[in-house]
Amino acid sequence: MKVIVIGATGAVGKAVVEELGQRHEVVSVGARGGEYQVDFADIAQVRDLFAKVGKVDAVVVTAGKLHFAPLASFTPEQFHVGLNSKLMGQVNVALVAQEYLNDGGSITLTSGIVAEEPIRNGASASMVNSAIEGFVRGAAIELPRGLRINVVSPTVLQESMGSYGPFFVGFEPVAAARAALSYARSVDGAQTGKVYKAW
Amino acid sequence: MKVIVIGATGAVGKAVVEELGQRHEVVSVGARGGEYQVDFADIAQVRDLFAKVGKVDAVVVTAGKLHFAPLASFTPEQFHVGLNSKLMGQVNVALVAQEYLNDGGSITLTSGIVAEEPIRNGASASMVNSAIEGFVRGAAIELPRGLRINVVSPTVLQESMGSYGPFFVGFEPVAAARAALSYARSVDGAQTGKVYKAW
Repeated sequence: MKVIVIGATGAVGKAVVEELGQRHEVVSVGARGGEYQVDFADIAQVRDLFAKVGKVDAVVVTAGKLHFAPLASFTPEQFHVGLNSKLMGQVNVALVAQEYLNDGGSITLTSGIVAEEPIRNGASASMVNSAIEGFVRGAAIELPRGLRINVVSPTVLQESMGSYGPFFVGFEPVAAARAALSYARSVDGAQTGKVYKAW
Repeated sequence: MKVIVIGATGAVGKAVVEELGQRHEVVSVGARGGEYQVDFADIAQVRDLFAKVGKVDAVVVTAGKLHFAPLASFTPEQFHVGLNSKLMGQVNVALVAQEYLNDGGSITLTSGIVAEEPIRNGASASMVNSAIEGFVRGAAIELPRGLRINVVSPTVLQESMGSYGPFFVGFEPVAAARAALSYARSVDGAQTGKVYKAW
């Protein structure tokens, strides 16, 4: 299979590239690194990317910014960071991927444990991650040609505990390589509309 | 209790006003009707509203636009209809309400059954309704002074079957008066971070 991984240079993305690269041809895309660079919040750039890469069998997204702040001081503009990046960036990829996926191909997006298990300063994270899971439930029933769409919800990564650890006290971190298995289940499996919980 | 109902002139809102009006002082707010008019997608207008109404014990929102379209032709701009209106409109109200609610007061938002049970043309509805539920889970753990926040997820209303019926074949519609009971449980009850399913 030919698989595009958008967010390939991040902590999750690197592990996904390694996992999927064992048996598939991976095209790595990053905001600044990777074979192709794209700001996926801009659907025009996503269209350009797919026009260059052409037909694929799977698309994985492991990218997206979120703003963390106390609810008492959160502004609409700060909520729009996550809405424009992690949510609509991934939706942009799904919308464009519909046209470039071979029959039976798949889209795999990324949410996060905070969708279900809230943390302080995480109102936007809970909102955006839940929105992605809702989008996947909605999109799954409309995709034609046997196309599938799933989402992986990772908990905090062992590799990210240096920066995120203080926000996730008591959460059991997962190794990126283990989280990557959920992406493999989505890409190589046959399910659709599913949230794979990597926790 | 003094309760603001935003969306008071809609099908759900009217029933909520009737239900809560039996024992509370209700301030009705609409986009065009009601005692006060506000475009809640604009947080400045929400701030003006609360500055005029002053301290309250509960805030209920039963408003919000969503765009419905086939996934194959959905555009980012069409997703932004629901993100700006039903999602961020309600979030704007919650953000401002924090400052105007008396101790122990409550915020009750509205999602919808499509968050969990997708329908054709409903990718944005599934996304936005899930986002609202995620926001409520996240916000609930941060609100101070015993403030609470919940969300009601109604199924299609009996009163709306004329317009929405064709999208909800096989769904059992609920009377608006029955859906309104979920809002009463949120306002008069003691739970927080909860999704009340009116279906």
